Amino acid sequence: MSSQIHVTVWGENVHEHENPLVAKIYPDGMHHTIAHAISEDGDCEVRTATLQDPDHGLSRGVLDNTDVLVWWGHAAHGKVADAIVERVLARVWQGMGFIALHSSHYSKPFMRLMGTSCSIIWREAGEKERLWVCNPAHPIARGIDRYFEIENVEMYGEPFAVPTPDEIVFISWFEGGEVFRSGCTWKRGNGKIFYFRPIPSIIMRVSGWFCAMPFAGPQATA
Amino acid sequence: MSSQIHVTVWGENVHEHENPLVAKIYPDGMHHTIAHAISEDGDCEVRTATLQDPDHGLSRGVLDNTDVLVWWGHAAHGKVADAIVERVLARVWQGMGFIALHSSHYSKPFMRLMGTSCSIIWREAGEKERLWVCNPAHPIARGIDRYFEIENVEMYGEPFAVPTPDEIVFISWFEGGEVFRSGCTWKRGNGKIFYFRPIPSIIMRVSGWFCAMPFAGPQATA
Amino acid sequence: MSSQIHVTVWGENVHEHENPLVAKIYPDGMHHTIAHAISEDGDCEVRTATLQDPDHGLSRGVLDNTDVLVWWGHAAHGKVADAIVERVLARVWQGMGFIALHSSHYSKPFMRLMGTSCSIIWREAGEKERLWVCNPAHPIARGIDRYFEIENVEMYGEPFAVPTPDEIVFISWFEGGEVFRSGCTWKRGNGKIFYFRPIPSIIMRVSGWFCAMPFAGPQATA
Amino acid sequence: MSSQIHVTVWGENVHEHENPLVAKIYPDGMHHTIAHAISEDGDCEVRTATLQDPDHGLSRGVLDNTDVLVWWGHAAHGKVADAIVERVLARVWQGMGFIALHSSHYSKPFMRLMGTSCSIIWREAGEKERLWVCNPAHPIARGIDRYFEIENVEMYGEPFAVPTPDEIVFISWFEGGEVFRSGCTWKRGNGKIFYFRPIPSIIMRVSGWFCAMPFAGPQATA
Repeated sequence: MSSQIHVTVWGENVHEHENPLVAKIYPDGMHHTIAHAISEDGDCEVRTATLQDPDHGLSRGVLDNTDVLVWWGHAAHGKVADAIVERVLARVWQGMGFIALHSSHYSKPFMRLMGTSCSIIWREAGEKERLWVCNPAHPIARGIDRYFEIENVEMYGEPFAVPTPDEIVFISWFEGGEVFRSGCTWKRGNGKIFYFRPIPSIIMRVSGWFCAMPFAGPQATA
Repeated sequence: MSSQIHVTVWGENVHEHENPLVAKIYPDGMHHTIAHAISEDGDCEVRTATLQDPDHGLSRGVLDNTDVLVWWGHAAHGKVADAIVERVLARVWQGMGFIALHSSHYSKPFMRLMGTSCSIIWREAGEKERLWVCNPAHPIARGIDRYFEIENVEMYGEPFAVPTPDEIVFISWFEGGEVFRSGCTWKRGNGKIFYFRPIPSIIMRVSGWFCAMPFAGPQATA
Repeated sequence: MSSQIHVTVWGENVHEHENPLVAKIYPDGMHHTIAHAISEDGDCEVRTATLQDPDHGLSRGVLDNTDVLVWWGHAAHGKVADAIVERVLARVWQGMGFIALHSSHYSKPFMRLMGTSCSIIWREAGEKERLWVCNPAHPIARGIDRYFEIENVEMYGEPFAVPTPDEIVFISWFEGGEVFRSGCTWKRGNGKIFYFRPIPSIIMRVSGWFCAMPFAGPQATA
Repeated sequence: MSSQIHVTVWGENVHEHENPLVAKIYPDGMHHTIAHAISEDGDCEVRTATLQDPDHGLSRGVLDNTDVLVWWGHAAHGKVADAIVERVLARVWQGMGFIALHSSHYSKPFMRLMGTSCSIIWREAGEKERLWVCNPAHPIARGIDRYFEIENVEMYGEPFAVPTPDEIVFISWFEGGEVFRSGCTWKRGNGKIFYFRPIPSIIMRVSGWFCAMPFAGPQATA
């Protein structure tokens, strides 16, 4: 690992062009807002890619130089070319980390990595979500108190049709009565996967955990 | 497996003698109430055992003839003799199912089977718990709707310090803001373990699942 | 569950037509040989389907009436239509069992259910494989001794690039020096998956385990 | 984490006093030989403790300053005081790593962390063990080729009666015909556990992995 973690933030970049309200909040697109927030810390070197770019911005060269791919999509999952999906999968199996943000549970790469329908229950809401830490020693959760809250969110709830996660880091409580395994990890080939909400500080922690390579260490058979 | 499942309901039987209110609700002890409800169905042959019995009612003969041991304790975990705990463990490893009911998370047999502190967060409450089915195809959850509710309960919440469950069947939502992996399975040796609330209908389903032995089947090497 | 388990054996049916030696051993195709052996027991009602059939023999009607789909392919994985693969996946998620036989680790449905490359190491061999039971209480392994052997087999070895199995039932030892997690289970949605060699007696056991539905049981919320 | 990993090597130190051959090979005890090899790298600060020391060398002060406890026992498991075992467990649950070396599968702390009988099959042998890497991206396996070999070892084989490991890093092949999940990880509370052979270079890698704390990172709720 070089001293910096190479993160690529992929954004579908559709709502930003079709919805004036979204365009106003994210004048450069959500992917830029997320990328900017992640890059502030200095541990990550961040670039962006979008659906509209050639190869959706995910050329072999870009993927080969990506340690962690952050994926946000919602309205245009079907427009992502299968050949690019295969390329992303191959790179995950080689060792690239993959962070699926929220409505990307139905994105092609995430569904392909899970092998399930990835369905959830959903309710348009504007209520409080409380995210409980179930795994206090996990690098992703360190330093977080027993829970944290997000105001005014949509509800995503159980059953979440994914394979049993390797680790459940967060379980969410919703004001309106639902629960959700909202922060989960899996491993596919050599790559790690995390599903979560688009919270930049958590994306940074996850990237750090994905790329931790402790102890260059001696050969086992010396 | 004989045609019936042999269930032993173990009750600590302490509150019933010390608390007049409890004594009034459970004149024969909670263990009898649970045992009676389980036996009504006819698939289970049920006996009871208590802390006060010789060997806590868990002689070798009793354990050898028990397919599923249901355990309820709360105030007197420390009074259970280590030799009996070892006997219970050995029988679980051999194949006996073990169902730990609620405050038995701190019981000696459950803690020994988990290998963790089994700590939870706790709040004396009298509020609604909504138990969501996360694993709709699991034999324990079949026929249950998306969730069911219990009124007026104590709160047990995350983090629940147990090893990653093999399966999470239920996750609970509490009115007051907590979540809990409230119905979990593990395997230890040849025996299966389930942690849950003392709900007889669920205990029956779990016992059925523990003892299912499909397909006597041909030899593999024939 | 009706009294019988509905098994569909899918065969690629290519080597049988291209290789005279294979044609001589399996005049009706490998799928028929496997199907015939499974049906002998009487617990399973078995039909077959092949690559060459319309819809590869896997119409919606057939899949809707299939409890367990047994899949054997080797030379023509790429010829399986993606639309049929999607149909198979949807049915697994709904609850159909899926048994991938040996070189089907590279089949489209298995790879899609795993979400990994499913690569193995491989050596053309004609040597002894000894399959150790790691999970003696598992319904699939019941009644099998500590191990059983198959003479004169190809070697499939570790690393086997699949997600951590839910259960490892068999680990194989090869005369030439390799090991392999040769009998593994996973769950995807409501369906169970087993990867193994084409041994009819084991396929029967697995089907029985997939379809076991103990304890019709009372409602939880009665 | 301070810049160094604090490792305590616990040795039973019995064979060294009772068997002249062992005494000749390990004049200062096996624990010193292991500790010395680990300390050579410079990443670990290593101390030793033995059964014969007061509190078996595991006072609260020692444990509080131990990041990774390495445990080797064989002949005197029963002589380890239960109170010290409880102390070790509490420290693992708090976050201390625990490495059980080989015949310590029957040691009290390992059995208590597993919650199973931890039985294996065993054969006095003097043959070759080949350890295959099943999890090539795991920090413990990095830089190791597809397998490595140890000559002239005892055989430990399946079934290994432990809970399903979180990760299987190595599976062993034995010349005489057995297999063994020989390098496994589990998590219990906040602490990680590894079971393996007493190979110092691997102990160092494991310690590095246990103590990796990537990315001090920002608060999630900033």
